[in-house]
Amino acid sequence: MLKVYGDIQSGNCYKVKLLLSLLNIEHEWLHVNILDGESQTNVFLQKNPNGKIPTVEFSDGRCLSESNAILSYFAEDSDFSANDKFDRAKISQWLFFEQYSHEPYIAVARFIQYYLDMPDNRKEEYHSLQVGGNKALVLLEQQLTIMPYLVGDQLSIADIALYAYTHVAHQGGFDLALYPQITAWCQRIENTPRYIPMA
Amino acid sequence: MLKVYGDIQSGNCYKVKLLLSLLNIEHEWLHVNILDGESQTNVFLQKNPNGKIPTVEFSDGRCLSESNAILSYFAEDSDFSANDKFDRAKISQWLFFEQYSHEPYIAVARFIQYYLDMPDNRKEEYHSLQVGGNKALVLLEQQLTIMPYLVGDQLSIADIALYAYTHVAHQGGFDLALYPQITAWCQRIENTPRYIPMA
Repeated sequence: MLKVYGDIQSGNCYKVKLLLSLLNIEHEWLHVNILDGESQTNVFLQKNPNGKIPTVEFSDGRCLSESNAILSYFAEDSDFSANDKFDRAKISQWLFFEQYSHEPYIAVARFIQYYLDMPDNRKEEYHSLQVGGNKALVLLEQQLTIMPYLVGDQLSIADIALYAYTHVAHQGGFDLALYPQITAWCQRIENTPRYIPMA
Repeated sequence: MLKVYGDIQSGNCYKVKLLLSLLNIEHEWLHVNILDGESQTNVFLQKNPNGKIPTVEFSDGRCLSESNAILSYFAEDSDFSANDKFDRAKISQWLFFEQYSHEPYIAVARFIQYYLDMPDNRKEEYHSLQVGGNKALVLLEQQLTIMPYLVGDQLSIADIALYAYTHVAHQGGFDLALYPQITAWCQRIENTPRYIPMA
């Protein structure tokens, strides 16, 4: 059976769990505690030399990592991708946006506040992350003013990837009440059949 | 005609130029100087609200940004993608690795040294970026010990994306002489028909 190594409280891992649920793909979830170094053991580094979760392991032993590469793999030819080539490219644009312009601000701020309980030596970094995080949220809000999902009328992996850390952004100090379109979009995603919450 | 907004000295832009050359796709290159704020004008933000280069504009006016989404778009069904679904996923894995675990270290260190001429207030950051950059180079070196290109026997957009900042990593303080497999791989890429250099 498909194995997923992850921590459900990590947005990068949760997004994989959410897509697998939406697609009804059976899998075994293996919890990895990164704070205890479980992603840096020799056994784990054989699966992902970069020592990061999520990592999936197929029944033949082959492994795949990078959350958005995993989403793209499982979404291929499903309702959560797109038939049109340009729409697929826009989905891909949002996936890279998420990893470069969204996650490094919102997920890291949340990590400092929620996982590490705001240690003094990371407070300055935490505050500086608010700027980039809010910039990313403004761009999402702007796009969701134009259309109900990030790429057109249908939920895609672009939404799933961006939803993962956005819907828990308050745990990183971001105020989603400032973003009504994002709030409505989160609600739409949460009303999708087979949706599962993070916790 | 296809328009590409970019700066050829930026690895993210150069990788698009390199793929378009390898694929022999005609295009107009429009230089954007980010230090002069040219990616933050109202006209440019209409094309990419995130204010980043590269951004491509198709003849119908539609735009696409995020360098690796652009690579994926143009490589689809070409020799620089893969026929096998798992190989395509591994290419995608390397593309996300590049944007999360490679570019933020190597490109940023290079930006500080090569574009900004090492201002005092960024020296500490510059030195801290060496750690993550070398970690990424070790992972590349490791993979290239196993196979001639990042995903199998054939040059793909995974290599093009990673090559872009790797081959100029010395401009960010990284010593490629420490990485013989990377050096040989750069040579292989540079011997590819229709290869064009950055400068």
